[in-house]
Amino acid sequence: MSTQPLEDLFTLLRFASVSTDSAHDGATRAAGEWLRNKLEGMGFRAALHETPGHPVVVAKNEHKPGRQTVLLYGHYDVQPAEPLEEWRTPAFEPVVIDGRIFCRGATDNKGQLMAHVCGLERTLLEQGELPVNLTILFEGEEEIGSPNLKPFLEAHKEELACDVVAISDTGMVAPGVGTFTYGLRGIACCEVVVRGPAIDLHSGIFGGAVANPATMVSKLVAGLHDLNGKVLVDGFYDAVRPLAEWERQAWKKLGDSEAETLSLTGSPGLFGEAGYSDLERRWARPTAEVNGIGGGYQGEGSKTVIGRSAFAKLSFRLVPDQEPGDILAKVQAHLQKQQLPGVKVEVQIGHVGQAYLMDPMSARGQAAQRALEKTFGAPPALIREGGSIPIVQAFKEVLGVDTLLLGLALPDCQAHAPNENFPVANFEAGMVLNRHLLEALA
Amino acid sequence: MSTQPLEDLFTLLRFASVSTDSAHDGATRAAGEWLRNKLEGMGFRAALHETPGHPVVVAKNEHKPGRQTVLLYGHYDVQPAEPLEEWRTPAFEPVVIDGRIFCRGATDNKGQLMAHVCGLERTLLEQGELPVNLTILFEGEEEIGSPNLKPFLEAHKEELACDVVAISDTGMVAPGVGTFTYGLRGIACCEVVVRGPAIDLHSGIFGGAVANPATMVSKLVAGLHDLNGKVLVDGFYDAVRPLAEWERQAWKKLGDSEAETLSLTGSPGLFGEAGYSDLERRWARPTAEVNGIGGGYQGEGSKTVIGRSAFAKLSFRLVPDQEPGDILAKVQAHLQKQQLPGVKVEVQIGHVGQAYLMDPMSARGQAAQRALEKTFGAPPALIREGGSIPIVQAFKEVLGVDTLLLGLALPDCQAHAPNENFPVANFEAGMVLNRHLLEALA
Repeated sequence: MSTQPLEDLFTLLRFASVSTDSAHDGATRAAGEWLRNKLEGMGFRAALHETPGHPVVVAKNEHKPGRQTVLLYGHYDVQPAEPLEEWRTPAFEPVVIDGRIFCRGATDNKGQLMAHVCGLERTLLEQGELPVNLTILFEGEEEIGSPNLKPFLEAHKEELACDVVAISDTGMVAPGVGTFTYGLRGIACCEVVVRGPAIDLHSGIFGGAVANPATMVSKLVAGLHDLNGKVLVDGFYDAVRPLAEWERQAWKKLGDSEAETLSLTGSPGLFGEAGYSDLERRWARPTAEVNGIGGGYQGEGSKTVIGRSAFAKLSFRLVPDQEPGDILAKVQAHLQKQQLPGVKVEVQIGHVGQAYLMDPMSARGQAAQRALEKTFGAPPALIREGGSIPIVQAFKEVLGVDTLLLGLALPDCQAHAPNENFPVANFEAGMVLNRHLLEALA
Repeated sequence: MSTQPLEDLFTLLRFASVSTDSAHDGATRAAGEWLRNKLEGMGFRAALHETPGHPVVVAKNEHKPGRQTVLLYGHYDVQPAEPLEEWRTPAFEPVVIDGRIFCRGATDNKGQLMAHVCGLERTLLEQGELPVNLTILFEGEEEIGSPNLKPFLEAHKEELACDVVAISDTGMVAPGVGTFTYGLRGIACCEVVVRGPAIDLHSGIFGGAVANPATMVSKLVAGLHDLNGKVLVDGFYDAVRPLAEWERQAWKKLGDSEAETLSLTGSPGLFGEAGYSDLERRWARPTAEVNGIGGGYQGEGSKTVIGRSAFAKLSFRLVPDQEPGDILAKVQAHLQKQQLPGVKVEVQIGHVGQAYLMDPMSARGQAAQRALEKTFGAPPALIREGGSIPIVQAFKEVLGVDTLLLGLALPDCQAHAPNENFPVANFEAGMVLNRHLLEALA
């Protein structure tokens, strides 16, 4: 590899493009502008599109009839670098140590994004053109939930029309093991607020005579699961598509994920739905979680009050074919039917996103697998992931296409954490993968 | 009434003497120092005694042989003022609105304490001396369970020897109705901490595979009661002394406490132990309450995490003849026997205090009733209260004397809550009561 690709990546990394922090707006915009200029210099027709937030970079080669059209997505914004004191090297000054590039954004997502850009540049230098019609779409708001991306897709639906989307923003199961993520869980959020007395009460004076909202919210949360990890909401599992037998078998071969989950989480023990393995629980089974619970006195020591209200922030991870709206309706019915005495129960609906599943044995899925095999020298791991990537669902809904998730990050790349890093070998593999992917899709 | 007593009370109220919060240690000590100086200025021999926590103020007039010795107790510390945004006036700046003094500590206990101090000052000015040997004992740790008071009583047992204790730190059943409290509930506190993963986890990546501490703490809290308001801890009711028949009858005559409880609390409905009236539930039945619950994300909106730990602050109100230590042992056994999977449950023991019951028809009980009748113009109501004043039991155990509880607070004085207040009329009545009480006991 010439040193130019790494130098380009380093240049992009030095922009402190923290999208959530308006103090960094200048750097965020500058990163988008630099990318636009870089792509233009490579011969693409490139533009920076304004949005109500950070701009979107769109670039295209010359689209010719009869060729496949591939949309390559990435994001140039990054998470905040704080806590800065935990970084061993400056957060926005890339440095290579033991074969890894350390910098905020190295893995999420600048390193993976630039692997594709530099792969394209090399192909263009060596071959003069690409085998497909390519549309590049890089946004600057992924780390704040892509609030402007779906409206942008809708407004530019024809310009962005394509046959398939490709993204490198997920993980590899192990170093050197090509990994194809063909499914993601969806999400449905709500907040339960339990209201009791009009004011916080002295628990000596009134205790025993009125309902305590913290007790009642506990009853609601406790009633979400049995001790076998099963969600007790009526009808919760009705629409769940069972795992295919090939998935269960394929995932069994991925190694001892139980030991890895224990080690990564530091939990005293595993706990989940009876009858499912650790990977099945995380990738293919729906969950109910309380992400926050609170009520009454929160400080040090004790305060003998009955708090006037209590809350529980709930989220449900969904799998095909659960519908977020249907699940939230069932959750509401489940919570209200308890008819808890002496309190009022309110449910506030939050954000939702559908689960995603594509067939890895479809024609494009097989093309992705071939490209990964050529790049890494062995058939790829076929996995789902437990998190949610709402933009994948947006591509499905607005553009009507599947997304190929070909991740280049390792579990210890510290995405979102101090000392984020990306192996130089993965950067190089990503450049190679880009060429094989476009050839396989062509 | 001259304005001096109110001015003195306002000065004491301005010290933000929040005993549970070490950030307020300076103000707490300053409140004690101010009281010592005030009492010294009135001619008492007064001293500030150091303890491992906040200091104790002790003051005496000249004790003469052959007179009754009365110990007057009060506390100069207050509850935290949070949530500050719910106060209509600044929490530590007293202001009189519609005949009530609004300030943290106005009713609990600075207003009631200063009514006695100012009553004494007036008697001394008008009569030159008091009819009894008086010992004043004001502490700064009542709101955190008086951890150092009992050791202090033991260490100063001879200096504090007396015939009876008098305290105004309880309630009146209605404005203008003198009220003699002959019983109090005890208390036993503990904090449950449920620990899961070593770090907060992404609920998409790991949700479903590890136990969520917020879910598990909810199961523990939910398991404390059934939906008939009965506490489910094994053996919880074993030692409970039933109400006497005269009490049930006397309390029935106190009016419609259910309507009053609904109106004072603003609760959507009453809820408590089946088979008992509102007053019986609050004054003579034991309870289990969660005073605070917390875990995971506490901010606005949502954050899809599994929090590493969760807590519940529990308190149990006790009645004769429940033993706090016995109850906490039973609670611990109850919590641990759930054997919740995937988490560690820790129970941290907090402060305790035994329930109190004296005979209101004893000689000193009758003296107290006479003083109340002279002050308010009618025979007093005879009640118990639901709160706990652990020091009453300490006076019984260490000094061997009963305590006369002659409260001056009204049900809507908002003790422990935002907008705490105290009627100026009650402050004045307390000054009068002080004189009648010492005369009746003399």
